[in-house]
Amino acid sequence: MRRVGLFSATLAVLAITSMTAQSADDIKPPSGYRNWFHVNTMIVDKASPLFDSLGGMHNVHVNSAGEDALKKGSPYPDGTVFVTDLHDFTVSDGSYVEGKLKGLAVMVKDAKKYEATGGWGFQFFAEGDANKPLVTDATKQCFECHVPQKTHDYVYSTYIP
Amino acid sequence: MRRVGLFSATLAVLAITSMTAQSADDIKPPSGYRNWFHVNTMIVDKASPLFDSLGGMHNVHVNSAGEDALKKGSPYPDGTVFVTDLHDFTVSDGSYVEGKLKGLAVMVKDAKKYEATGGWGFQFFAEGDANKPLVTDATKQCFECHVPQKTHDYVYSTYIP
Repeated sequence: MRRVGLFSATLAVLAITSMTAQSADDIKPPSGYRNWFHVNTMIVDKASPLFDSLGGMHNVHVNSAGEDALKKGSPYPDGTVFVTDLHDFTVSDGSYVEGKLKGLAVMVKDAKKYEATGGWGFQFFAEGDANKPLVTDATKQCFECHVPQKTHDYVYSTYIP
Repeated sequence: MRRVGLFSATLAVLAITSMTAQSADDIKPPSGYRNWFHVNTMIVDKASPLFDSLGGMHNVHVNSAGEDALKKGSPYPDGTVFVTDLHDFTVSDGSYVEGKLKGLAVMVKDAKKYEATGGWGFQFFAEGDANKPLVTDATKQCFECHVPQKTHDYVYSTYIP
């Protein structure tokens, strides 16, 4: 996958993992993210080897704390939050159409608090529900796939004017 | 096309039209739209009969004036602005990835001013450039395709929670 995905944890892994190390229990689903800066959209289609884990329409937003860093390139200041507003999609006559919400993937920057995972806290909320967090081991479920992006502060998304 | 497209004017038509009736010369490309409410994203792919005219990734935003009306359903108040932030896309290993800006499609609500076109002014700016407006006849190039959406105040986009 190119440098466009916000998170690389697989939902398949999420579903079968029961470890509790580095759980970011303090992360909550943010509100108002659809008024945050729209970073990019990516669709992971059925033909992708990632479809089972990451299939859907990924609408990526960043909050105001991280907007300048996105535009300039990393590093991101503490307080930056990325959200992937993940939706189903349908294909109709060659058009890919947004469907219902599948979940929210959240990355929160706090260099000290999340030092073990590159300064980022990770969580995924099924259906955007605060009571349905799926990440119990951020290192294995999320961070390990972000390590190749170390030079970009572990973020895949880039600024597209 | 289902009720997801923001505008239905074809760029092919835009390119060959030289009429000047109902030109919305006063409409300018808005700024800050990527911080407006993200309404939805749609990709018109090569398999679509609309690809030649509307191909691309359509990231649709609405300004604060129209946000409540979107969520409740129409009608939209004067001052509502919809923007389609239209980008190229590439397909890589089954993922659809956002590319560079193709243009901005703009709809501005002013019931009196644009009475002849359902209360909406229409414009499309190639590459988002204020000096490259392509709509010279909003009725033929834009409005006629929005008429079927009269009961939704001529807007195709709907609210997807």
